[in-house]
Amino acid sequence: MDEISFLTNIFPKFKTKKSVVIGPGDDCAAVAWSDDKLQLLAVDQLVAGHHYLNETAPERIGRKLLARNLSDIAAMGGTPLYALATVAASSEYSQEYHERVMDGIVDLADEVGVNIIGGDTCGGVTGYQSTLTIIGEVPTNEVVIRGGAKPGDLVCVTGEVGDSFLSEHHLDFSPRLAEGRFLAENGFATAMLDISDGLLLDLSRIATASNCSIQLDTTAIPARNTTSKLKNLLTDGEDYELLFTIKEENLEKMINNWKFPTKVTPIGRCLVKNDQQIYDQNSTNLLEKYTTFSHF
Amino acid sequence: MDEISFLTNIFPKFKTKKSVVIGPGDDCAAVAWSDDKLQLLAVDQLVAGHHYLNETAPERIGRKLLARNLSDIAAMGGTPLYALATVAASSEYSQEYHERVMDGIVDLADEVGVNIIGGDTCGGVTGYQSTLTIIGEVPTNEVVIRGGAKPGDLVCVTGEVGDSFLSEHHLDFSPRLAEGRFLAENGFATAMLDISDGLLLDLSRIATASNCSIQLDTTAIPARNTTSKLKNLLTDGEDYELLFTIKEENLEKMINNWKFPTKVTPIGRCLVKNDQQIYDQNSTNLLEKYTTFSHF
Repeated sequence: MDEISFLTNIFPKFKTKKSVVIGPGDDCAAVAWSDDKLQLLAVDQLVAGHHYLNETAPERIGRKLLARNLSDIAAMGGTPLYALATVAASSEYSQEYHERVMDGIVDLADEVGVNIIGGDTCGGVTGYQSTLTIIGEVPTNEVVIRGGAKPGDLVCVTGEVGDSFLSEHHLDFSPRLAEGRFLAENGFATAMLDISDGLLLDLSRIATASNCSIQLDTTAIPARNTTSKLKNLLTDGEDYELLFTIKEENLEKMINNWKFPTKVTPIGRCLVKNDQQIYDQNSTNLLEKYTTFSHF
Repeated sequence: MDEISFLTNIFPKFKTKKSVVIGPGDDCAAVAWSDDKLQLLAVDQLVAGHHYLNETAPERIGRKLLARNLSDIAAMGGTPLYALATVAASSEYSQEYHERVMDGIVDLADEVGVNIIGGDTCGGVTGYQSTLTIIGEVPTNEVVIRGGAKPGDLVCVTGEVGDSFLSEHHLDFSPRLAEGRFLAENGFATAMLDISDGLLLDLSRIATASNCSIQLDTTAIPARNTTSKLKNLLTDGEDYELLFTIKEENLEKMINNWKFPTKVTPIGRCLVKNDQQIYDQNSTNLLEKYTTFSHF
């Protein structure tokens, strides 16, 4: 299934109530919650042998399931509150295995103040599939979407990208909740998402939603593994770092107030939309050069 | 996996914020929403070949996925608002198949005023599995839980039970949203749930949550198929009818105001908790006689 063409076909079928402030297509949907808050909602799934190796310790699977959903809340500038989880598993998985997956979820949930409020388990499948629905909140005037970047804004990324699978970063990453809140509550981020499908594809999502082009300085991209090729930095995916845009005049203030051990790096600039959507310092069309490819 | 013993082990691990008004274990969780409303949340999943035959038309699969979640909202007396859906599918399923599943969801969603606000699709699995998270609302002073039945209350059921699979009721049933709202907003239902795992097991859930015993008049149980054996009425499951309790003095008023084509039938009475949890008019222990068994 080609997710992008599937979504392109089905989105127009969806109706939207007035209370749906942000519909499908961003990291989270947002619905009216109280006078000054939105509720954020997102769902994600993990498939054994696809999103992780079958021999991965169950606690790490549970942790990853919650963490990648937390990353979607972070990308909107929100605070996570509740979660619902499902598991569909073949009978070869023991109850102890399921409980260890839940332990992985619950340990991280406790750490970030999330309550598990519901779920479902069932059999009848081959393998092991899990889903998690995350619910969070964000002050209405602070929510950050993908479509808010303007020509001239700088593009920044938290942490490092590439080599997520071999380094096991995709299992052990820390969702950038505090960083996302900081960028949202101070009004620094004009657009934001979390990098799940590779820097290049996720840059193009900001460019599409914000109706701009982006020029990337590929020499500035912070690499998790310094021996990684540019192709890996651009397309590996599962980085779960925040990719955001910021007005140039706010960059210095943002960096001076950045209180996190995570690094933050300017890597490019939004430009008035032109023939090429994403290109590098030499005007090479990156979307043409690097076929975007996602393992996950 | 034994869902009941799994849940018994994991529930104590969950922490609960003050804003979680009803935690896991009821048909929906409920969280604080506004001054006079709760938000209801539930998640459920469908597995091909387990919850439906592989050759089932995709629109009916999508419809069922949403309908069984709507039934959980109905069971709390609520009104559904939003949904998020996921699909994990092997590559043998075409994009047209996925779109037809979505059509089944969207057609019913439009009918009941639900907006699809998010979701996720992925491959890498054998077969076809889908999940749906439903979000609804209910006035805080009208929400109906499983634990509110008192000794003396009558036990009633909407519609008919048994033979859900062969009759294809499990695909085509109408979630009892209007009936659930009526029972909640008029304060008739003291406890309520929807029958998913069989009348007997779901009766025992009300009895356990309400700390009572229930005497059932097995001759009064309305049968979908009049040739069904009692065992099928009690244990087939997937009825998606409302099972509720009501104070005896309210029964006549409830029946006089019942404006739905769906029938409603008193089938038993709550009693002070005794040695047997669920027994019939001859004091036969039904939980002992009929091993509860759920296909689904």
